[in-house]
Amino acid sequence: MRVGGIDGARLMRRLQDLGEIGALEGGGVSRLALTDADKAGRDRLVAWMRALDLVVEIDVIGNIWGTRAGVEDLPPVAIGSHIDTVATGGLYDGALGVMAGLEIVETLNDAGARTRAPIVVAAFTNEEGARFAPDMMGSGVAQGALDLDEMLAVEDAAGLAVGAELARIGYVGDRPVGALKPAAFLELHIEQGPVLEIEETRIGAVTGVQGISWTEYVIEGQSNHAGTTPMALRRDAGAVAARIAVAARQIATDLGPPQVATVGVLELTPGLVNVVPLKARMTVDLRNTDDAVLAQAEARLWAAAEAAAAAEGCTLEMRRLARFAPVAFDPEIVARVEAAAAARQLSCRRMPSGAGHDAQMFAPNCPTGMIFTPSAKGLSHNVREYTAPADLEAGANVLLDVVLDLAGIIA
Amino acid sequence: MRVGGIDGARLMRRLQDLGEIGALEGGGVSRLALTDADKAGRDRLVAWMRALDLVVEIDVIGNIWGTRAGVEDLPPVAIGSHIDTVATGGLYDGALGVMAGLEIVETLNDAGARTRAPIVVAAFTNEEGARFAPDMMGSGVAQGALDLDEMLAVEDAAGLAVGAELARIGYVGDRPVGALKPAAFLELHIEQGPVLEIEETRIGAVTGVQGISWTEYVIEGQSNHAGTTPMALRRDAGAVAARIAVAARQIATDLGPPQVATVGVLELTPGLVNVVPLKARMTVDLRNTDDAVLAQAEARLWAAAEAAAAAEGCTLEMRRLARFAPVAFDPEIVARVEAAAAARQLSCRRMPSGAGHDAQMFAPNCPTGMIFTPSAKGLSHNVREYTAPADLEAGANVLLDVVLDLAGIIA
Repeated sequence: MRVGGIDGARLMRRLQDLGEIGALEGGGVSRLALTDADKAGRDRLVAWMRALDLVVEIDVIGNIWGTRAGVEDLPPVAIGSHIDTVATGGLYDGALGVMAGLEIVETLNDAGARTRAPIVVAAFTNEEGARFAPDMMGSGVAQGALDLDEMLAVEDAAGLAVGAELARIGYVGDRPVGALKPAAFLELHIEQGPVLEIEETRIGAVTGVQGISWTEYVIEGQSNHAGTTPMALRRDAGAVAARIAVAARQIATDLGPPQVATVGVLELTPGLVNVVPLKARMTVDLRNTDDAVLAQAEARLWAAAEAAAAAEGCTLEMRRLARFAPVAFDPEIVARVEAAAAARQLSCRRMPSGAGHDAQMFAPNCPTGMIFTPSAKGLSHNVREYTAPADLEAGANVLLDVVLDLAGIIA
Repeated sequence: MRVGGIDGARLMRRLQDLGEIGALEGGGVSRLALTDADKAGRDRLVAWMRALDLVVEIDVIGNIWGTRAGVEDLPPVAIGSHIDTVATGGLYDGALGVMAGLEIVETLNDAGARTRAPIVVAAFTNEEGARFAPDMMGSGVAQGALDLDEMLAVEDAAGLAVGAELARIGYVGDRPVGALKPAAFLELHIEQGPVLEIEETRIGAVTGVQGISWTEYVIEGQSNHAGTTPMALRRDAGAVAARIAVAARQIATDLGPPQVATVGVLELTPGLVNVVPLKARMTVDLRNTDDAVLAQAEARLWAAAEAAAAAEGCTLEMRRLARFAPVAFDPEIVARVEAAAAARQLSCRRMPSGAGHDAQMFAPNCPTGMIFTPSAKGLSHNVREYTAPADLEAGANVLLDVVLDLAGIIA
C-alpha cells in the first residue's frame, strides 16, 4: 500500500494546541523542564498518544515513549525530540519533532497501514538544559551517556532537584534505562540558524552535531565602597567577569567560523550601584564541529580567565557543566534523507547542526539522522521563532518517507 | 562648666545594640532603607532619643530629628548621619554619626550642662541609595537639593515606592521640608578608605566630598540560539555590557587617582547558558574631586558605550541615576576640627571624602564639616567593616568639642 503524505493542517493544529500550554503574553512559550507547564504539556502529549492507540510508557528519568506495534518482532524505528522549552522560547523547537511523530502515526492509522518494525514516538526530559544542566538529559540517560542517579540529583538555581521535581509532576516511570535498542533514530527539528532560509533551501540533511562545552566561572574578590577604594587596591570580581566575557568573544572571532562563544549568564553579588562586587558567576558556551579547535578555544579561554583573576587578586573556580564531542550521523541515513527530499522535489543541502539535539545521544548506539526545516531569520530560543507551515509539512513528509523506508511498510 | 569627654563604652554599647537589628549570620548588618529592619532600627533610635529627653519630630521624607533645647532661641547646631545600610554592611557606616550624637546628648545630660544654642541629632532616610536611587535622599530633600514628590515616587527593583514604604513602616511625619535652618552641621563618620590607617592618623578633618556620577545603561539586542547563530550575525546585549564594563575600568586607570569607576550592577536577560542575551542592564559609578575630570570620565564612557552598542547593532539607553558636583566644606569648621584634635593630642590630617555623605547636602546652606575615624583595611560596605573602640571614642570627643564650641556651653 502507499501512504501519500501527512496532513499539514493537522500537524499545525497540534503544534498550536501544545503552544497554548505555557504561552507567553504577546507570543512565544515558556515550558521549562519539570515545571507545571511542562507537566501540562506532558499530560496533553500522553492523551494524544493514547487517542492514537500508542502504548505509553514512562521511564525512570521521565522520558515518554509511545509505541505503535509492528507486524514483526523487530527493534523499532524511533522518532523523538522534546517538549520542554527555554524560558522565552517558540512554538517549534523540540515540539515539531514530537508532533511530527504523532502526525505520522495518525497518517498510518487513517490509512490502516501496518509496518514490519514497530514505530516509537518519544519525548525526552530536559533537552534544553535551561533549568537543569546539562541539556539532553533524558536522552543522555536513556542511551547511557549520563548517569541516572547523578542526573536525578541535579538542582536548579532554587535548589530543587530533578528527581524531586519529576516526582512532584508525577513523571517518574518504571521503564528502566537502556530499554530501547532502536533499529534507527530520527529527529525532525527546525534549523535554529539562518542558513536554509538564506540559501532558499527547504530541507537540511544533517551530517552531525557541533561539539559543545559549557563552563561555569565563579570569581571571588573583595566587596568594598565604590567611592573610597582606589582602583589599584581593588579586587573587583565583576571586572574579572567582564574581561572573561570580552576574551570569550575575542577567541571566537580569532578562531573564525564555525567557532561560537556565548556568555548567557553573568551575575554580580551583592549587585548594588555603589559596592565593588564581591562575587561574579558566569557561564561560557563554546561550540565547534572540530573537536581539536574546540579544545583549543577552551584552553585559551581558561588561560585568559586565570590571568584576569590573578591580575585582580581574585580567586577563580571553574566547573564544567557539559562537554559533548562533535557527533557524526549515519551516512546511510543522511543519504536516505537526501533521497526522500529529492523524490518529493524539495531542495536539500547537507549541513552540520550548531545546536545539541537528543539525536546525538542515539548516534553511538544505532543508525541516527536528523532533518532540518528553515527558521525565519535564524531565530530560535526566541518568542519570534517561526517556520512556514509549508516547510513544516515538507519536513514531516521527508521524515515519514524515511521512517517507512526503515520500518518497512506492508504492501 | 567643663565637660571632659564622652563615655566610649556607652557609645560602643549603643552601636552594638543597633547592630543587632538586621544582624547577618556570621557578622555584619543588613538594614536596607524602609525595610522592616530599618523600621526596627528607627524605633530603637526614637526610644533612645525620648529616653534622653530629646523632642522627636519626623519629617515628610521620614528623617528623624531629636532636639535638645538651648538656653537661647538660636538656630541649632545639628549633628547627623544615617542608620540605613547596604545589603551586606557593617556596624559603623552611618550609625556612628547618629550614636555619637546621642552619646554627646547623654554626656551633657549627665553633666547637667546647658548650651546657648539648641543641639539637634538627626538620622536621614535612605542615605545609602542601595535600595532606592539616588542616595542621600532624606538629607537632599530636607535641604532642598531633591524634590519631595519625585523622591516619594522612586521605586525599588520590585516596584515598591519610597512613599508607600515610608507609610508601611509608619515613618511619614508632618514636619515640612526646609524646617531646619541650622547654625552649623557636623557629621562624624568612618573614613571607609585606607588612608588614615596606612598613615597611622587618628582623625580626618574632611575638606570636602568627591563628585559622584551614577548612570544606568540598558542595552537591547536580539535573543537567539547560542549554537546556531554565527558570531558575525549576533546582536549580543551582554557582549556590549562587558565591553562597557572593561571601558569603565580603563578610563579610571587612564585618568589616574582620584578617579574611580565601579560597575556594581550587571544583569542579563533571559540569563540562560545557551541563549544569546536579549538585554543587559548595568550601572556605572564614577567619582572624582575635580568636576572637570569627572565630566571627562563621563563623556569618555558614554562615547565608549555608544560605540560598543553600535558595533553590535544593539540599542542603548542611558539614564542618569545621580549626579553630585564635588563639595567643599566650611574652612572655619575644618580648622575647628583640626584644633580640637590638636587639643586632645590626636594626630590629624586634612582629606577629601571619597564617598557621598548627608553633610554635603547641608554644605550649600550652612557652615558644614565632617570628622573621619580610621577604617581597618579601608573596608566598608562590607560585613568586616571595623574601627577600633579607641578611635570611635576619639572621633566622638572631637565632635563633642566642636559642637560645644559652636553651640556655646554655659559656664
